[in-house]
Amino acid sequence: MEADTAPAPSGTPTPPIRRAVVLLSGGLDSATVLAIAKREGFRVTALSFRYGQRHGDELAAAARVADAAGVADHRVVDLDLSAFGGSALTDAAIEVPQRDGQQPPDPGIPPTYVPARNTVFLSVALALAEATGARDLFIGVNAVDYSGYPDCRPAFVEAFERLANLATRAGVEASPTGGFRVHAPLIRLSKAEIIRRGTALGVDYGDTLSCYAPAASGRACGRCDACHLRAAGFREAGLTDPAASTP
Amino acid sequence: MEADTAPAPSGTPTPPIRRAVVLLSGGLDSATVLAIAKREGFRVTALSFRYGQRHGDELAAAARVADAAGVADHRVVDLDLSAFGGSALTDAAIEVPQRDGQQPPDPGIPPTYVPARNTVFLSVALALAEATGARDLFIGVNAVDYSGYPDCRPAFVEAFERLANLATRAGVEASPTGGFRVHAPLIRLSKAEIIRRGTALGVDYGDTLSCYAPAASGRACGRCDACHLRAAGFREAGLTDPAASTP
Repeated sequence: MEADTAPAPSGTPTPPIRRAVVLLSGGLDSATVLAIAKREGFRVTALSFRYGQRHGDELAAAARVADAAGVADHRVVDLDLSAFGGSALTDAAIEVPQRDGQQPPDPGIPPTYVPARNTVFLSVALALAEATGARDLFIGVNAVDYSGYPDCRPAFVEAFERLANLATRAGVEASPTGGFRVHAPLIRLSKAEIIRRGTALGVDYGDTLSCYAPAASGRACGRCDACHLRAAGFREAGLTDPAASTP
Repeated sequence: MEADTAPAPSGTPTPPIRRAVVLLSGGLDSATVLAIAKREGFRVTALSFRYGQRHGDELAAAARVADAAGVADHRVVDLDLSAFGGSALTDAAIEVPQRDGQQPPDPGIPPTYVPARNTVFLSVALALAEATGARDLFIGVNAVDYSGYPDCRPAFVEAFERLANLATRAGVEASPTGGFRVHAPLIRLSKAEIIRRGTALGVDYGDTLSCYAPAASGRACGRCDACHLRAAGFREAGLTDPAASTP
């Protein structure tokens, strides 16, 4: 038997390390994606942004989620998109829409849309991935129970993956098979399915924060689109949200 | 005659303002692109990055170029790509290749490649454009006299434009004609053609800096790929580089 085809003496050859960069906002979706990437065996670098969002509570949530998942490498990149304006999430002068659970959301793309945010975040994730030897990017976008954002659709994810393999040394050198893969494992799941999946993987949703406009205490407002989507998801999944405010 | 179809009383209707975001590094190429965008009638926002490059001299050059072109809105965004490593331009531990003019450059993509840099820069330009009402992005990439970077090719520019129109509210709302255009007016020009074009448009190349590794004085090294390409371009154009060091 040739040495290079024989198993290692222990009988279990060591699989190669597969590295991934996971975008981690600290919300329910990205916490679930992180658990999926870990379960798939990736060594994960988590990437969060201090981008001028209204509140720092989501970065605290991202740190809790990364810690609970045992992620050794969590990067927080400063990139101030609030200087550009144009979104209720980065500009205190634009109101985050609030409604009770009976009202439907307004049609169209809401004011919480941040111009080109997922494009910017994936681009920086791509730079980090190429520099650190990762070839897999994970993002928690969702095209079912979402807020109408254009950069949450399958066509966006596919276009970014195509760009990534044209734009980089690693992509060109792997051509024509393509070096980078952009994983969006939640893209066709309902919020309830996401919650069931994460719960089965051991995600503690008590660590996460989904709210667009939490109170000074860091508690979710219960009246923004993100809070309504989350509450409806837990209801449909037949589970209790451990982060829900108690009356 | 209806008031809304009549020309303005002066007889010359005011054309609508067309806004553009121009990526401005402070080098020869981006200074030329800025002059082209201005000549085409765009109201320009210039965008530069403090991305952890070895030296701040190129940002000083960008400020001079913007000022000379009469750009009222020049943004400098902080985004530290040097924390990721992987390039001679952001990591002092990786040497910038130096050679004399007789030696050819090493084949392949050189160590001055910065992982995914143009993808990141265009993404932030897209965010700024969407937030400020610009629909035109300008970038000074060049696929002829360049350093072998994958993110300087036409296929990259086309893939980014496609992504931009899937990723954004402005792109979706303009569908199917597409809202954003990515202009790369130098992409098929030689360095000499770029220099002739810019000279005809009044660019003072004495304001620009192309060098990858300038001396502490801010003077170009004369021995890196960027210096060699620039010197050869001026020679071929039959012009004197006003920024060239005098013996």
